[in-house]
Amino acid sequence: MREVAIAGVGMMKYGRYPDKYVHELGAEAVLEACKDAGISVKDAQLLVSGNLLQARFMVGQRILQQIGQTGIPVVNVANACATGSTAVREAYLAVGAGACDIAVAVGSEQMGKMGLLGGRSDDPYGRGHTTEGHAGSNIMPTVFGQAGVEHMRKYGTTFEQFAKVAYKNHKHSVLNPLAQYQQEFPLEEIMNARMITWPNTLYMCCPTGDGAGAVVLMSADKARQHTSAPVILAASILTSDPWTERDLALADISTLTRMAAQQAYKQAGIGPEDLDLVELHDCFATAELLHYENLGLCGDGEGGRAIDEGWFTYGGKTPVNVSGGLLSRGHPLGATGACGIAEVVWHLRGQAGKRQVEGAKVGLAHVIGMGSACTINIMKR
Amino acid sequence: MREVAIAGVGMMKYGRYPDKYVHELGAEAVLEACKDAGISVKDAQLLVSGNLLQARFMVGQRILQQIGQTGIPVVNVANACATGSTAVREAYLAVGAGACDIAVAVGSEQMGKMGLLGGRSDDPYGRGHTTEGHAGSNIMPTVFGQAGVEHMRKYGTTFEQFAKVAYKNHKHSVLNPLAQYQQEFPLEEIMNARMITWPNTLYMCCPTGDGAGAVVLMSADKARQHTSAPVILAASILTSDPWTERDLALADISTLTRMAAQQAYKQAGIGPEDLDLVELHDCFATAELLHYENLGLCGDGEGGRAIDEGWFTYGGKTPVNVSGGLLSRGHPLGATGACGIAEVVWHLRGQAGKRQVEGAKVGLAHVIGMGSACTINIMKR
Repeated sequence: MREVAIAGVGMMKYGRYPDKYVHELGAEAVLEACKDAGISVKDAQLLVSGNLLQARFMVGQRILQQIGQTGIPVVNVANACATGSTAVREAYLAVGAGACDIAVAVGSEQMGKMGLLGGRSDDPYGRGHTTEGHAGSNIMPTVFGQAGVEHMRKYGTTFEQFAKVAYKNHKHSVLNPLAQYQQEFPLEEIMNARMITWPNTLYMCCPTGDGAGAVVLMSADKARQHTSAPVILAASILTSDPWTERDLALADISTLTRMAAQQAYKQAGIGPEDLDLVELHDCFATAELLHYENLGLCGDGEGGRAIDEGWFTYGGKTPVNVSGGLLSRGHPLGATGACGIAEVVWHLRGQAGKRQVEGAKVGLAHVIGMGSACTINIMKR
Repeated sequence: MREVAIAGVGMMKYGRYPDKYVHELGAEAVLEACKDAGISVKDAQLLVSGNLLQARFMVGQRILQQIGQTGIPVVNVANACATGSTAVREAYLAVGAGACDIAVAVGSEQMGKMGLLGGRSDDPYGRGHTTEGHAGSNIMPTVFGQAGVEHMRKYGTTFEQFAKVAYKNHKHSVLNPLAQYQQEFPLEEIMNARMITWPNTLYMCCPTGDGAGAVVLMSADKARQHTSAPVILAASILTSDPWTERDLALADISTLTRMAAQQAYKQAGIGPEDLDLVELHDCFATAELLHYENLGLCGDGEGGRAIDEGWFTYGGKTPVNVSGGLLSRGHPLGATGACGIAEVVWHLRGQAGKRQVEGAKVGLAHVIGMGSACTINIMKR
């Protein structure tokens, strides 16, 4: 397979855009990514669009209509929270295979204030929902709460340590003008906030929101014609497990991440010690702490101590979620995977403004969707 | 890009399966295709699932749960009526790129008796619907009716000639045990049936239904280890145009097909005269006649004469839709693209039973989705 580079990225500020169509959000990100790559939309030879909630409504072709390109292949993908990063991977495979030289991947989502998996009337799987789903409560906080409780039981991790994850990411977000929220909270306020599902309080759960991100991929040779220092997509891994709502409580959020990490490090020829920054899937504070261990950023059971010792912020071993993460930057489902990649690219290029991780040369973007799909992309400059 | 072969195919008989989940239909097709390829599901290294109406519900991962495979990448795609064939193309690119040696693509759909684009309450694009959509009438019959009227005006094509297309496909379907309907109708009955949108009567419109199809793809080298005569996927093309409901009436159903055909013939190194059979997208009788010309099976304006002269049935120049086509075999949206490919493969292998096109060596499967996506796959043995 040919070497593939990321030549441009774009992202809309996350927020609420009730007056826009989701493809308008996507188009804005695509136009920005093309501008960033120094190409015209007419140069795009493939568009892969990731969108979860409106997946059947041909969001990609609607984006094509917005940006004014015609006649190219358009593929719509949906893969739970890993939708945007799955779009990037499909574009990566097409460029890698030589089917095209320039591909654009976009992830977009318009969530409004919807609840997650709340048993909507149009859900053909309503029959298969768990009791929790039928009762209208949210499944995700329960699953990720339980994962935290299990970590507490096994390793003695504390509520305060989990809260420190959220403290860190909210603090990071203050420097990111693209984040949905840019507000720091004192640790006590986070711990005293409304409990959603123990041990995650309100500020330890990601918000809902709208947004979009886009990535322009090129063969490395082509990218070198555009820039002297292209960012190389050194690994793009996707792993999935069987899925049914009935088994949700049994799903192990760590297994898929560990499997993907192992494959990604092998493909990129690096180890976790080589990473200068990581954007990982902190849908809940508990999840982030587990993923430190799943990605090998610290040893098993060491997540609590590592957050106490400041390993994962500026000046620490590996800054994690300097964007503010899902907890504060936000989590418009289909957009998340593309925007995590965009964030890493900005740092590798030294273009991350006030939140820049100095001298970053290697970065990793991780997403895990309950649904189930885990993507890991490793980028190098 | 590596050469890619089709090593196995599977298809559920189309029909109505109200008591099954759509992923159960998909799993049945996958298991059949794996058996046909002589592999275990544990050999599958990638699953690409095409499903349109339940696209956001992770149908692929649910299929994984049914078949008992774990840990592999699963991608869900949606691309209007070309959903199943887009899944095949994504698998083709992954194998071609060398990301895996064995990939399974599956297309499935459960439509019940739904209307098409009838302005459902969960449609986020409800705001953008045309007057026709709001009034609850079907857009598709109107668009394809108008296309037929325009052909009549331009070339003098007659109502009877369009009806002969449906006569042919219904007649073909009698020999296909997998077809949703296996019933021949006298030409007069077709012409006297309830008019849906001039010039297409009820029997000149495809039915709704449930179904699934699957395709096992391998690197050609790998396939040759399994069989002495693998079917080579010589071209797999996807083209799309901008899309919005407002522009639907203006959409040219021919442009995308002609563009895809040109690219596909070039990639496969053949011309339309080399084709031994074609499965094309006869969602309406008018559409099939236009596609004879769009695919170069006859000259522009010659479609009416060619159907009069029997070019497109057994013993004619190029048998078209010997499966019964969408008109009679059926059209469960996401399944269609995969099953058209399966049909061609059976003929190239000499395994099409009573409906076998004798000595078939090269075949083409075409799908065009209003949404907009056109796929053409050319297979050789």
